[in-house]
Amino acid sequence: DAPIAILAGPCQMESRAHALEMAAGLSEIAQKLGFGLVYKSSFDKANRTSLTGRRGIGLEAALPVFAEIREKYGVPVVTDVHEAGQCAAVAEVVDVLQIPAFLCRQTDLLIAAAKTGRVVKIKKGQFLAPWDMKNVVAKVTGSGNPNVLVTERGSSFGYNTLVVDMRGLPQMAETGAPVIFDATHAVQQPGGQGTSSGGDRRFVPVLARAAVAVGVAGLFIETHQDPDRAPSDGPNMVALKDFEGLVSELQAIDQVVKQRKSASQA
Amino acid sequence: DAPIAILAGPCQMESRAHALEMAAGLSEIAQKLGFGLVYKSSFDKANRTSLTGRRGIGLEAALPVFAEIREKYGVPVVTDVHEAGQCAAVAEVVDVLQIPAFLCRQTDLLIAAAKTGRVVKIKKGQFLAPWDMKNVVAKVTGSGNPNVLVTERGSSFGYNTLVVDMRGLPQMAETGAPVIFDATHAVQQPGGQGTSSGGDRRFVPVLARAAVAVGVAGLFIETHQDPDRAPSDGPNMVALKDFEGLVSELQAIDQVVKQRKSASQA
Amino acid sequence: DAPIAILAGPCQMESRAHALEMAAGLSEIAQKLGFGLVYKSSFDKANRTSLTGRRGIGLEAALPVFAEIREKYGVPVVTDVHEAGQCAAVAEVVDVLQIPAFLCRQTDLLIAAAKTGRVVKIKKGQFLAPWDMKNVVAKVTGSGNPNVLVTERGSSFGYNTLVVDMRGLPQMAETGAPVIFDATHAVQQPGGQGTSSGGDRRFVPVLARAAVAVGVAGLFIETHQDPDRAPSDGPNMVALKDFEGLVSELQAIDQVVKQRKSASQA
Amino acid sequence: DAPIAILAGPCQMESRAHALEMAAGLSEIAQKLGFGLVYKSSFDKANRTSLTGRRGIGLEAALPVFAEIREKYGVPVVTDVHEAGQCAAVAEVVDVLQIPAFLCRQTDLLIAAAKTGRVVKIKKGQFLAPWDMKNVVAKVTGSGNPNVLVTERGSSFGYNTLVVDMRGLPQMAETGAPVIFDATHAVQQPGGQGTSSGGDRRFVPVLARAAVAVGVAGLFIETHQDPDRAPSDGPNMVALKDFEGLVSELQAIDQVVKQRKSASQA
Repeated sequence: DAPIAILAGPCQMESRAHALEMAAGLSEIAQKLGFGLVYKSSFDKANRTSLTGRRGIGLEAALPVFAEIREKYGVPVVTDVHEAGQCAAVAEVVDVLQIPAFLCRQTDLLIAAAKTGRVVKIKKGQFLAPWDMKNVVAKVTGSGNPNVLVTERGSSFGYNTLVVDMRGLPQMAETGAPVIFDATHAVQQPGGQGTSSGGDRRFVPVLARAAVAVGVAGLFIETHQDPDRAPSDGPNMVALKDFEGLVSELQAIDQVVKQRKSASQA
Repeated sequence: DAPIAILAGPCQMESRAHALEMAAGLSEIAQKLGFGLVYKSSFDKANRTSLTGRRGIGLEAALPVFAEIREKYGVPVVTDVHEAGQCAAVAEVVDVLQIPAFLCRQTDLLIAAAKTGRVVKIKKGQFLAPWDMKNVVAKVTGSGNPNVLVTERGSSFGYNTLVVDMRGLPQMAETGAPVIFDATHAVQQPGGQGTSSGGDRRFVPVLARAAVAVGVAGLFIETHQDPDRAPSDGPNMVALKDFEGLVSELQAIDQVVKQRKSASQA
Repeated sequence: DAPIAILAGPCQMESRAHALEMAAGLSEIAQKLGFGLVYKSSFDKANRTSLTGRRGIGLEAALPVFAEIREKYGVPVVTDVHEAGQCAAVAEVVDVLQIPAFLCRQTDLLIAAAKTGRVVKIKKGQFLAPWDMKNVVAKVTGSGNPNVLVTERGSSFGYNTLVVDMRGLPQMAETGAPVIFDATHAVQQPGGQGTSSGGDRRFVPVLARAAVAVGVAGLFIETHQDPDRAPSDGPNMVALKDFEGLVSELQAIDQVVKQRKSASQA
Repeated sequence: DAPIAILAGPCQMESRAHALEMAAGLSEIAQKLGFGLVYKSSFDKANRTSLTGRRGIGLEAALPVFAEIREKYGVPVVTDVHEAGQCAAVAEVVDVLQIPAFLCRQTDLLIAAAKTGRVVKIKKGQFLAPWDMKNVVAKVTGSGNPNVLVTERGSSFGYNTLVVDMRGLPQMAETGAPVIFDATHAVQQPGGQGTSSGGDRRFVPVLARAAVAVGVAGLFIETHQDPDRAPSDGPNMVALKDFEGLVSELQAIDQVVKQRKSASQA
């Protein structure tokens, strides 16, 4: 049981300068606290609530920036893919291909991502039970790629609300894939602001502490130096200034839980 | 308030012969009962629960069959599209492009479907509130296509279960788009059979009667001459032999409800 | 399959004068439209959201008024009981003892109600599945009283929201007890106004039409001459002036559905 | 922020001998690990799924046993009350009166419990939002008793399933009342075994670790020396032999979380 890794970065790639600035800040914290960092950003927010929501700088502009971040900061990078045709190009630069939650049952996308040989990180749909992920994972492993990560980001609970069932974390671990907890999307209120999704970042540390105490391989935490001005997911993102304090608390809990687990297995 | 139309056909296009046989049976019933029929079938089930689930005969094989059905039986046809790149080709033959529920927020797919000028029928995601559909509809109308249909097929309710909130029908009608009730997918139990979705077709008439009494523009009812042997959605499909009885009851309720509505508005 | 009966009246008994006025209005409509009326009112709202919510005139004051209404208008009456000790006294005057939804699993209350020999009408808890009602009904029938009615009034759906699963109506009918649909409490938004429950009476006719089309023995519809000034459940109650129009539409749907049912069974 | 207290004991009081044996075992562990123990047992299971479920030894037989446990082991005791009339008698012996979840809105019961001056521990109904508890707590504090504990035991999530929303713990803390997490009832599957409730005790440590990492005043953990033979709630109860290991892990997490909290507030 390795210590928790952290997948972090701004929801969408806003510009090269912004991406490099965020990567610099995050990798400094990662070195200080000693955790494995994977830099995250989306080149295209393909399922915004509204037609007029900003979508990111696009695939072509983003790939060189991901390459630059990998080289300059020595960190792996993760980004979303939305159609099968994107997977090969993205995989030339990006270490981890993320399958969005709404798309987690799209067979062609899963197969195309699998065929790249890169790690495939699948977000559990808000409409799926934890045990349903075994079929989803099998679409990737059955296509010859054993490198799968599964991610919890909440389940539909009435309207415009998500709930995280913490029992789902060990249930998803039964797939054999390491489990990542997405602490920022889990506090989303989908569609909750009329023409965009709301959220409540006060609950990010609450759910993150809970998930780490249950036991996870890593956390996904979207961060921004000024979340209230971010073009997407602002209400859920963690301010960069609060990031170090949050992660160091999670590390402390993780250490207690994993030490006891190894002790009881020894 | 026109009488209810019926969108019907087998879940997936299994073969040309099967499609023609089903279209013949359904158009005979439509003529007898006097309802507007739209023939439905999927050329590709792109989000099966499991990698090994049968997916249909594919786009290229299906389009000529749709063309043949339109010509031979004089009925419009509807089928699903899954990626933006498919829309133009499908629209050459098919009257109504259906956006699957999991994909109802994929902006590029909605825009590509809109650009064809065909009617775009959008299924409400199991993870959306009825009022969230106004943003979804606006992605199509804002792309210059006013011909939108919206469809209710149930909301996530705990695990492996859907529930239909009948209040959602008038709420979705506030988008201005006619509302279709999908009576067969609404009784699905997603992932409920381990490696495939379950369902309970006994509740198709129950929910269909309720929706018609609330007031809808049409119903979507998947039908098969032998549902228990169908390659997908068998547990929910209505047997062809029960179809006439079901629709004629729905027509009787529809008539009562719409007569009273016109009377009260006169 | 008898035509639908209607249980109606104001949520709480506000005064003798108000109760008689409401009973007069409702029995006049019942005679005109030819439906079986059961007059409903609560003598005590024992589970208000807030300590300061008005609770009604109390058991002692209410019983003579119920007796007067029965005699004067020749209609049976129904009211809630909250503790086992109340049942015997209430049963001396009241025809139908109603078990509130929150209390539907309280064994002693069910047994005490059963022992009176009166009809026991049990509301399904917002936390129960339709099939769970068989155990609840068995607590009454197993205590020697076969006269049970079961009532649907919605299930918890996320926070501060109820949803009606129309499949629950035939599922509850499998208990053998006639099913009543409570169209006004089903549109409640529990706790939705901070210190009281909200609701949306616009959806009462929507859900009532749906339930009748599915098939029920009767409806429960709280009514008030001025709902916006009622001391409880105002947001859901139907204005008395709209009551006749609503019921006559429900009767028309009921007739269509039950005629076809008898025809298909003949 | 005091270290977590533990409320523990068998679901129902089965006999004097059994109660004393369990109290002995639990108080030994409490002394060893140094936590505050409150001994829990119900004298009457008043809302069993089925009429034939065993209900416990009853009020009169149980009170002397509670008195004996308090004196012999020097621990406070907690038990459920179900009707207003029971509160005074129970309060003569018992330190903490627990209001069952289904009854958490019954005004008379809350007032009667409040009037005893004992601590009133209120379980949040499966049908309430966390913020709805402020009205519930106010029924007790508004009756002159400031000693209230609130308890999370899960929310309805579809049928026969509960989910714990960990955000609810800090939301309930805003009432000002200390928050107890009921780790055994939270894993119940209400009505899930046809004529009794199911559950899955494997998830008790999962949810308990999560709740402690979020931050709570105490935990409620039903325990039994042989849960599979217990007359009620067997599927969720923790075996006595596993109790020490579970609590000592929770204490370790609690220490980390509360130390950091005091540090950040210093």
